[in-house]
Amino acid sequence: MRAIATACYQAGAHHVEVHYADPYVQRARLQHAPEPALGSVIPWVRQRPVQLAEMQGALIALSGPPAPGLLDEIDPARIGRDAVALVEWARVIDAGTVNWTIVPGPSGPWAELVFGELDPAAALGRLWEAVAHVCRLDEPDPLEAWWTRSRQLAQAAERLSGAQLHSLRFCGPGTDLTVGLLAGVRWTGGGFRTAWQREHIPNLPTEEVFTSPDPERTEGTVTSTKPLLVSGRAVTGLRVRFEGGRAVQIDADEGAGLLRELVERDPDANRLGEVALVDGSGRIGSTGIVFHDTLLDENAASHIALGSGFGHLAQDSDTAGRVNRSAVHTDFMIGGPDVEVTATARDGRELPVLIGGRWALE
Amino acid sequence: MRAIATACYQAGAHHVEVHYADPYVQRARLQHAPEPALGSVIPWVRQRPVQLAEMQGALIALSGPPAPGLLDEIDPARIGRDAVALVEWARVIDAGTVNWTIVPGPSGPWAELVFGELDPAAALGRLWEAVAHVCRLDEPDPLEAWWTRSRQLAQAAERLSGAQLHSLRFCGPGTDLTVGLLAGVRWTGGGFRTAWQREHIPNLPTEEVFTSPDPERTEGTVTSTKPLLVSGRAVTGLRVRFEGGRAVQIDADEGAGLLRELVERDPDANRLGEVALVDGSGRIGSTGIVFHDTLLDENAASHIALGSGFGHLAQDSDTAGRVNRSAVHTDFMIGGPDVEVTATARDGRELPVLIGGRWALE
Repeated sequence: MRAIATACYQAGAHHVEVHYADPYVQRARLQHAPEPALGSVIPWVRQRPVQLAEMQGALIALSGPPAPGLLDEIDPARIGRDAVALVEWARVIDAGTVNWTIVPGPSGPWAELVFGELDPAAALGRLWEAVAHVCRLDEPDPLEAWWTRSRQLAQAAERLSGAQLHSLRFCGPGTDLTVGLLAGVRWTGGGFRTAWQREHIPNLPTEEVFTSPDPERTEGTVTSTKPLLVSGRAVTGLRVRFEGGRAVQIDADEGAGLLRELVERDPDANRLGEVALVDGSGRIGSTGIVFHDTLLDENAASHIALGSGFGHLAQDSDTAGRVNRSAVHTDFMIGGPDVEVTATARDGRELPVLIGGRWALE
Repeated sequence: MRAIATACYQAGAHHVEVHYADPYVQRARLQHAPEPALGSVIPWVRQRPVQLAEMQGALIALSGPPAPGLLDEIDPARIGRDAVALVEWARVIDAGTVNWTIVPGPSGPWAELVFGELDPAAALGRLWEAVAHVCRLDEPDPLEAWWTRSRQLAQAAERLSGAQLHSLRFCGPGTDLTVGLLAGVRWTGGGFRTAWQREHIPNLPTEEVFTSPDPERTEGTVTSTKPLLVSGRAVTGLRVRFEGGRAVQIDADEGAGLLRELVERDPDANRLGEVALVDGSGRIGSTGIVFHDTLLDENAASHIALGSGFGHLAQDSDTAGRVNRSAVHTDFMIGGPDVEVTATARDGRELPVLIGGRWALE
C-alpha cells in the first residue's frame, strides 16, 4: 500500500487514503457485535463512494484472503448477515463515475493458505512469483500486454453480444445447467471506460467475459469446479440446484450453511446476477494453483454469481430493471476443461461456445 | 487495536472502525503531493466527527511517534502546511458530543526512538513496562486509581479557577514568561463529561490542569524543557520570545523552521491557546524518560500551546470568542523542578502556584 500510495502521489493525486480492513477486527465483530448491528453500515462509509465519484476519484483495492481457519469458529449465519455489498458502490460503478481496480496483494497469511507446505518466507516468495506471472508482470511491457488481452476479451464479448443468444448451457461432471440470457443486456470484458472516457481495467488479472443473465431463467444442477472463500470461510464441493431461476437446493462438502444464509438475505439473493466465461488461454487456470481468492480463482474458470448484477450492461432502463438488484454478490466457479459451454440462439439454433477451453463461437 | 476493538464489541458497540494513519504514506504525501493538496481534507473525513457526535459515538486514539528519522529529509515548510487540526473535531469536543480518549500505543519504531540502545524486543518490552507504569496499570485497581487522580486534578483546577488570577509567570533557566489569563475562562483537569453526562478521561495518562489563556497577553521569553516532535520531526532547544501575545522570535537547536512555518498558518497561530500546569506527583516526570510523544511528555511538565484553545471552558459566548481559534495546536514543555510558577491575582496580590514541583496555591 505504501508503494501504491507513493505512485499515486507521484502521478498527481491530492489525497491517498489507505483503509485497512483487518480480518481480526472483523472476527471480533462477528463474535461479539449485537445482532442488530450485523449488516448495518455507518453513514460516512456510505458517503465515501458518492463523494469519491463527485471528485472523479480512483479506488485501488488489494485482494487477498485472511489467515487459514481464522473464521472457522464463527457462526456462518452471522457471517452471512454481516456481508453487505453497498448499493452506493454498485451505483457509482454502474454509472462509471469512479476509476477503479482490484489487484492481488500477497501477504504472509495468504501465502500460508496456498503454499502451507513451504516455510513462511519461501511461501510468500512463491505467491509473489505466481501473482507476478498471472498479472503478466514478467512480460517486457506489462501495460501493453494488458491492453492487448483487454482487446481480445472485448472482441470475445462483442461476438457473444452479436450472437443473439437466448440461453447458455454448461455440461460437465455434476453439471447440467441452463442460464437464460436477456436480449437487451450486452456482454463485456477487459477494460472499462469511466463516464469521462478514462480507460481502466477493473480487475487485474482479468480473463473473463461476462453479462447479467435473466434472473428468472436458470434451470438445472451445477457443481463448483474450485473451492471458494465466502467472507473468509471455505466452501468446497458446492452443488446447487435451480428451479425457475431460484437456487432451491444448496449442498456442499463444507460451508453449505453460509451459502444458504446468504441466499436468504433478500428476495433476489437466490437468483443469478452474473454469468462469466473464461477461456483456456488466460494465465491463471494454467498455473493449476487454487489461490483461495475470488479475484484470481474466478478468472481461472467460467463462473456464475448469486445476487447483484450489472445494470450498466443493459441497453435500456426497462431491461436494466430486470437485472438482479440483490445486496449480495457471490461468485462461484463452474467451468474447466471438462465443462462444455453451448448456447441456444434466439432463432433456435444450437451453437458451441467454449469447447475444451477454446472459443468455438464464430 | 484488535484487543480494543474486541473490548468495544464486548461492551456493546455496533461498529468499530479502525483507522491506521501510516507514517510512511504520510511521508509519501509530504514528498510528492502537489502543493495545493497540502492542508486540504476530503469531505468524508470532515463529516466523520459530526456523524460520530450524532451517534453519541466514542473515539479511542492510540498515540505514538513514527520511526526515528522517518521525516528527516522532508521540507519542514511542507510538513507545516499539511498539519491540520479539523475544526469539526474541535467543535464536537467543545460541545461534549463525543466520548473520547487518547492512550499510548507502544510500537517497535517508538521503542527504538526511546530505548534505541536495547535490542528491538527488549526495547519494546521496556516501553510497554514504562507505559503500563505511567498508565497506573500496576495499581490493584487501575480504574479506581484514575478516578482518584482525576478528582485531585479537578480540585487543583477548581482552586486555580477560584483564585481569580490575572496572569501566570514562569521563571527558570532561560525562561521568564508572563501569560495573561481571561477572567471568564475556567481551569479544568482530569475527567470530562459528555453532554449526556458520561464521564470519560480524554487523555490517559493525564496529569495536567489547564486553561485557555488570553491570546493577547503573553510577554517574555521561554525555553522548552523537553524535546518535542512536531508532525514527526524533532524540535530541540526551542526558545520563543513573545511580544503583545505573539511569538515574534523562534529559535531552536533543531527544527526551528517547522515551528516558524506553523505559526504562519493563520493569524492566530502565533498566539497561545493553552497553558497547563503539571505538579511533581504524576508518574511521567519521575520516570525521567523522554517519550518523544506529546501525550506523555506534556503530562511530565507544565506546558503551553501555540494555536487553538478550548472554547468550552469559557463562561459565556463573548469570552469564548476571545479564546484562540487557530487551526493548529502545538504543545511544548516549559516546566520542571527548576521552573517556578507564580501568579498575579486580579486584586494585585502575588501568589505562589507551583514551587519545586508542588502545589503552593491555597
